[in-house]
Amino acid sequence: MIKKLLIIGVGLIGGSLALALKKAAAVELVIGSGRNLLDLQKAVELGVIDSYEMDLKLAAIDADMIVLAVPVGAMEAVLQQISAYLKTDAVITDVGSTKANIIAAVQRVFAAMPANFVPGHPIAGTEKSGVEAGFAELFRQRRVVLTPLPETSAIALEKVRHMWESAGAEVVETDVQHHDQILAATSHLPHLLAFTLVDTLARMDESDEIFRFAAGGFRDFTRIAGSNPQMWHDISLANRSALLDVLDLFTNDLALLTEAVRNSDSAGLLDIFTRAKAARDRYAATLTSPAESQPTM
Amino acid sequence: MIKKLLIIGVGLIGGSLALALKKAAAVELVIGSGRNLLDLQKAVELGVIDSYEMDLKLAAIDADMIVLAVPVGAMEAVLQQISAYLKTDAVITDVGSTKANIIAAVQRVFAAMPANFVPGHPIAGTEKSGVEAGFAELFRQRRVVLTPLPETSAIALEKVRHMWESAGAEVVETDVQHHDQILAATSHLPHLLAFTLVDTLARMDESDEIFRFAAGGFRDFTRIAGSNPQMWHDISLANRSALLDVLDLFTNDLALLTEAVRNSDSAGLLDIFTRAKAARDRYAATLTSPAESQPTM
Repeated sequence: MIKKLLIIGVGLIGGSLALALKKAAAVELVIGSGRNLLDLQKAVELGVIDSYEMDLKLAAIDADMIVLAVPVGAMEAVLQQISAYLKTDAVITDVGSTKANIIAAVQRVFAAMPANFVPGHPIAGTEKSGVEAGFAELFRQRRVVLTPLPETSAIALEKVRHMWESAGAEVVETDVQHHDQILAATSHLPHLLAFTLVDTLARMDESDEIFRFAAGGFRDFTRIAGSNPQMWHDISLANRSALLDVLDLFTNDLALLTEAVRNSDSAGLLDIFTRAKAARDRYAATLTSPAESQPTM
Repeated sequence: MIKKLLIIGVGLIGGSLALALKKAAAVELVIGSGRNLLDLQKAVELGVIDSYEMDLKLAAIDADMIVLAVPVGAMEAVLQQISAYLKTDAVITDVGSTKANIIAAVQRVFAAMPANFVPGHPIAGTEKSGVEAGFAELFRQRRVVLTPLPETSAIALEKVRHMWESAGAEVVETDVQHHDQILAATSHLPHLLAFTLVDTLARMDESDEIFRFAAGGFRDFTRIAGSNPQMWHDISLANRSALLDVLDLFTNDLALLTEAVRNSDSAGLLDIFTRAKAARDRYAATLTSPAESQPTM
């Protein structure tokens, strides 16, 4: 049972975590903090948090567990404000979609990696944002990746693992670089492709008709382009190196496919499509059907 | 009421059309034809067609309405086999995702464009294929685009329009080139991007883990990569010119986005993402919620 949980950034992820832990009776008191007073008031009204404290120092001073759920680009500034005001046994974790960049920020703020900081990333979300979009079941059957470092204390790691498991998630551990590479491939690259596709089409002469004729496949494909621009700006820069690697791979493969179309290379096209369908079918076979129907990131 | 309907290619689209017309009591008799005997037998068992005739000439000879629902690349060969065996008032239409290419094939086969040929394209489907995947509601609230030519008879056009409306679809007319450009942008390009993304990721060293960690956004994004490779091979070649145009636009925009990531161009990234989200939100606002939850192409 977490005694006093501080959620910094009470949006979709932070709010849903609070709701899930309350529902599981895994927390005594949830305090919210953040930059926007109205959002925090709304979070209290919705029963997501018990109270709020705009002053980060005061909010942090007696928290047992602190969850950083602000955009990736805002993590360092938040850490700077709270670093001198933490209880010695307070556990800190984050929900950022990139890990190397956040760990570097933690190291800059604390000079060395604190044993009680557990880098984390719940692979869950929808294209919506804000506390109103939150719900207690968001993490159910979703993976949360923790990327502990050699400095990370086993006790802190266990507390964070237990918190996420209480929220219904399946917790896995991997190393930082691996996490960032895999997320670049499976989440960051698809988001950038969706943003680019929508932007390309929106700037075509026939854009009105294009969107009018677009059907379900297009809807699914571009749903993630409805995601928060600031968040994806932060992620793109935070995971720049891994993202550039997969962007380059994809760009190269797209150029090969384009050449196959240009040259009417029948065998080449069929090869690519057949290989991709086989991989997609293998992947789809691993999915459980209830999970497939749920909106996630 | 269509007296004798011949569906050549009783798969997802042809089979669903047969089911929809039967359900609407808009057809007396449905004959199926195609290359695969077992598929046709299954279609009879499932009640999709009343009977089948493997010999295209015999199948065509007394049909009142003929729907070509074979892959785009197979249209010309089918037309060649039936062209000399049609009733003079038989109406022919197709369901191909590209129109210029099919019209060119019709013109090659018939020397001139027959007045009774109405080029059509139901913008509906799922990533599944085959008659077992068919269902009577597939076209409900979906658009069917007809691209009549100056040679097309008003009566034939009206009959095809009525058939699709009986199946629950909304029929719109546009010109051939326009159709092909818009479909290249909204359907063909997204399919090629999905195939490429899955193929790129499947060939990475960490591909097993990549697919293991992939969550909902990736699932939605890549669902269409489960589509039939032969069908997309045919479409890519049949709509080659319009597809190359949008591939080039997209590739150019992706290169700009990649440069923005490479140069940590904060303002540039935020611009692109904000513009895309605004376009996606405008587009999403035009969608009716029941349609959004249905699987379509």
